[in-house]
Amino acid sequence: MVVKVYGPDYANPKRVIVCLIEKEIEFETIHVDSFKEEHKQPEYLKLQPFGLMPVIQDGDYTLYESRAILRYYSEKYKNQGTDLLGKTIEERGLVEQWLEVEAHNYYPPIYNLVMHVLVHPYKGEPFDPKVIQESEEKLGKVLDIYEERLSKTKYLAGDFFSLADLSHLPFTHYLMNHMKKGYMVRERKHVSAWWDDISNRPSWKKVLQLYKDPNF
Amino acid sequence: MVVKVYGPDYANPKRVIVCLIEKEIEFETIHVDSFKEEHKQPEYLKLQPFGLMPVIQDGDYTLYESRAILRYYSEKYKNQGTDLLGKTIEERGLVEQWLEVEAHNYYPPIYNLVMHVLVHPYKGEPFDPKVIQESEEKLGKVLDIYEERLSKTKYLAGDFFSLADLSHLPFTHYLMNHMKKGYMVRERKHVSAWWDDISNRPSWKKVLQLYKDPNF
Repeated sequence: MVVKVYGPDYANPKRVIVCLIEKEIEFETIHVDSFKEEHKQPEYLKLQPFGLMPVIQDGDYTLYESRAILRYYSEKYKNQGTDLLGKTIEERGLVEQWLEVEAHNYYPPIYNLVMHVLVHPYKGEPFDPKVIQESEEKLGKVLDIYEERLSKTKYLAGDFFSLADLSHLPFTHYLMNHMKKGYMVRERKHVSAWWDDISNRPSWKKVLQLYKDPNF
Repeated sequence: MVVKVYGPDYANPKRVIVCLIEKEIEFETIHVDSFKEEHKQPEYLKLQPFGLMPVIQDGDYTLYESRAILRYYSEKYKNQGTDLLGKTIEERGLVEQWLEVEAHNYYPPIYNLVMHVLVHPYKGEPFDPKVIQESEEKLGKVLDIYEERLSKTKYLAGDFFSLADLSHLPFTHYLMNHMKKGYMVRERKHVSAWWDDISNRPSWKKVLQLYKDPNF
């Protein structure tokens, strides 16, 4: 059964797609134009009632929330493609910990940066320089903790690549390539090496090749 | 090995404690006074570098982020106490989905309500009526989607109690018992029945009996 992924041009769905490529799972994508509010239309809301992307359909199984989809496929195809969950239950615990750190500490400020530096100006909407400054400060403090962690282990959850690292790819890509804020990564030696490592994985390069970034 | 849980008087650690009770895992608690900023001191930051609660210690294994700890113990003791992950990998996927919904859709507005209705006034800090109004509107929309879901299944992930439900207990308890906003639950028939069900579990009653709420 080919997995259908909705919204491949956007960052949160790309988190799912890079996982499917790592896991060698066949998929197809269905374009959803958020600038035309296609994700707020009744047909879409039947699949994802909150009107958010991504959602996947796998036969008659529908699942949303990108990090839930990551866990589902990483578990279901544990022995196919790259193992993204760690070898032991304790390693898996640390994968979960750093995946939650990504969701609750890293994502909120980098999301605000994407919105106020890129999306709002692109759409001609008001943006707030105070939010930009505060978000950059918050993200900097998070990256200081990452720097300390990555001075001890090669990846966030340990010396193995996992969902915890993979989950950072789409938004950090915007930081490095669209926002001119790559110095936030480059001025931290271990974070910088980690970013070079994970962003050069063939899976992520393939995502960037297949699906264009929004035009901002 | 007895699990040590830091910060039992606060809501996010209570999410872990109710899970440990459901899983019949022995634990002890270590008091952390957030109003005295004990979670920002160097000794605590060695365990949890972001200065957040909870963190657990289990022998020489340390883990933080409440929802990561839930997953770790639910998996490690899959066949002990209440099964909180579902029986199949597809059920687990839905548990993950609704656990993420709790984290990303439910938690942000209810957290803002707790801060601006309870915590800031208690500490004599400024609070923002606009944040209160907007958060209540957002939470109401989320609860409308819960109402629809819970008209079809008894619990969020299906007809079985899981981490997805359990994760809602501590903050919804504040909504119902400290904020005088219980009408948000009571005016939605299925959400109301669900809340009565999950909040009357012996595990949650034991948490409330063992650990007092903050004084707000």
